[in-house]
Amino acid sequence: MSWQVTVLGTNSAVPTPQRSPSAQVLSTEKHSILIDCGEGTQVRMTSFGIKRSRIDCILITHLHGDHVFGLPGLLTSYNLFRRERKLQVYGPKGLRAFVTHNLEMIGTHMNYDLEIIEHNAADPKRIYQDEHLEIRTIPLSHRVPTTGYLFREKIPPRKIISEKATAYNIPYTAMRSLQLGEDWIAADGSTIPNEQLTFPNRTARSFAYCSDTAYREDIVDQVRSIDLLYHEATFLHELEKEADKRMHSTAKQAALIARKAEVKKLMIGHFSTRYKDPKILLEEAKQTFEPTILAEEGLVVEI
Amino acid sequence: MSWQVTVLGTNSAVPTPQRSPSAQVLSTEKHSILIDCGEGTQVRMTSFGIKRSRIDCILITHLHGDHVFGLPGLLTSYNLFRRERKLQVYGPKGLRAFVTHNLEMIGTHMNYDLEIIEHNAADPKRIYQDEHLEIRTIPLSHRVPTTGYLFREKIPPRKIISEKATAYNIPYTAMRSLQLGEDWIAADGSTIPNEQLTFPNRTARSFAYCSDTAYREDIVDQVRSIDLLYHEATFLHELEKEADKRMHSTAKQAALIARKAEVKKLMIGHFSTRYKDPKILLEEAKQTFEPTILAEEGLVVEI
Repeated sequence: MSWQVTVLGTNSAVPTPQRSPSAQVLSTEKHSILIDCGEGTQVRMTSFGIKRSRIDCILITHLHGDHVFGLPGLLTSYNLFRRERKLQVYGPKGLRAFVTHNLEMIGTHMNYDLEIIEHNAADPKRIYQDEHLEIRTIPLSHRVPTTGYLFREKIPPRKIISEKATAYNIPYTAMRSLQLGEDWIAADGSTIPNEQLTFPNRTARSFAYCSDTAYREDIVDQVRSIDLLYHEATFLHELEKEADKRMHSTAKQAALIARKAEVKKLMIGHFSTRYKDPKILLEEAKQTFEPTILAEEGLVVEI
Repeated sequence: MSWQVTVLGTNSAVPTPQRSPSAQVLSTEKHSILIDCGEGTQVRMTSFGIKRSRIDCILITHLHGDHVFGLPGLLTSYNLFRRERKLQVYGPKGLRAFVTHNLEMIGTHMNYDLEIIEHNAADPKRIYQDEHLEIRTIPLSHRVPTTGYLFREKIPPRKIISEKATAYNIPYTAMRSLQLGEDWIAADGSTIPNEQLTFPNRTARSFAYCSDTAYREDIVDQVRSIDLLYHEATFLHELEKEADKRMHSTAKQAALIARKAEVKKLMIGHFSTRYKDPKILLEEAKQTFEPTILAEEGLVVEI
């Protein structure tokens, strides 16, 4: 199964009937991860075929309303739906107070295990890993503590050639070491080189989500060569000063990060409401980095 | 200009793509009043032609998420739109803490005058009046302190016959006393009876909004003979016990209140998500009170 990124909202600041505030869902075989949760996110999940119950983890980039005002509603809906599975919510310091105060004010006691995990937005850090996935924070530069997130699939570097494994009677317990590149010592003491038993695995999938941020050069090394980079592009470059002042990026700046990092594809979003049709932002980005696409409500990007 | 009630949301508890959480707007010549503000209300205002900037007053019935989770987003949008007009927000105790904590958490300082006025939900009380309008609270029975709201137009009992006022040279400053039914003493000392100078004014318009509440008989006297009663009808009467337990009303109970109060029209809403098509609730209510209509997203009711 491929990784899928579903875009739920693309607008900055204020929701409109045409464009919603920030939210995306990364769906993998094992996980369904919501990134940011602007007002109305839970309804758009339903509209765009994302099962709310599948979400096992929510990542918040920063505590601005257009990224977090949909969270109290979603968490209480889980309560009303009698969710039983644990839910982890990650975000910068202050997230726990935001969530607990909202739930206390409306007198809701969660009947499921809700774990809120705060991190220091200034340090790049691995915040989650299991055998399939690793998630790291990407420090961003915005008016409040903000982190992007980097998702890397965890797969062994080699894939086993099954008829060879059968021919040499290699036990199941040894498969992992072969996947990691080790040779095999046969029953007669001879060494079978790993290259005869395996072939190289495909590249692990990767995705990064960077919103909101001023142009920040050190993002480049953290997202180098990844499959898909989502980077905010609130303004056209003619408004570079406005972007600097409000600590946002221009379409050109997003494309510069993508080009320097040599990512495979760039998706831009978080468009200022002033751009009725964000195609103008796409055109600007493409001049610097051609493999750029526009985030659109309901868009599904396969990785 | 007539009074208009615009329905923005009709669902209970959880928003869905088809039905939104509670919110209505009462528009009069002088006022534009938002009642309740579930998640996504600000977008539906735009969708249904309500100018956000026209709203001068917001009334919250109670601090449950489906009635209040859209408020922080709307208030911060006003900030982003550089609102300058004062905004008053009324609601039960706890509202101020809910609003101020949400705004503090996202680091927003309001650049307009935001006045939050809390009331004791247990006492029926006039909370607002000017020369056009009076607003009173209606105590309701729900799991948290909850008030409905009663809106009465303020108009003088008599309307002046302008040619008579001209004929008797009655000065502008005396008009108000004539509208209130007083006679006129002419320059020659003779008394002109009020009935010769005025005719009876039309009936003042009235509207009440009652959500959420268990069946509560004392609502009847407070809404007697009004033009339009909005009363919640979460369940069919076959679920009366469930309604009692969760302190909601059935369609039949809403209709009973309307019939006893002899209101002109009843609108029911706040439907349980279990009713895919709320017509079944309308049919039940109509058996008890025929002039009942269904609240629907985008419906405009003229009073």
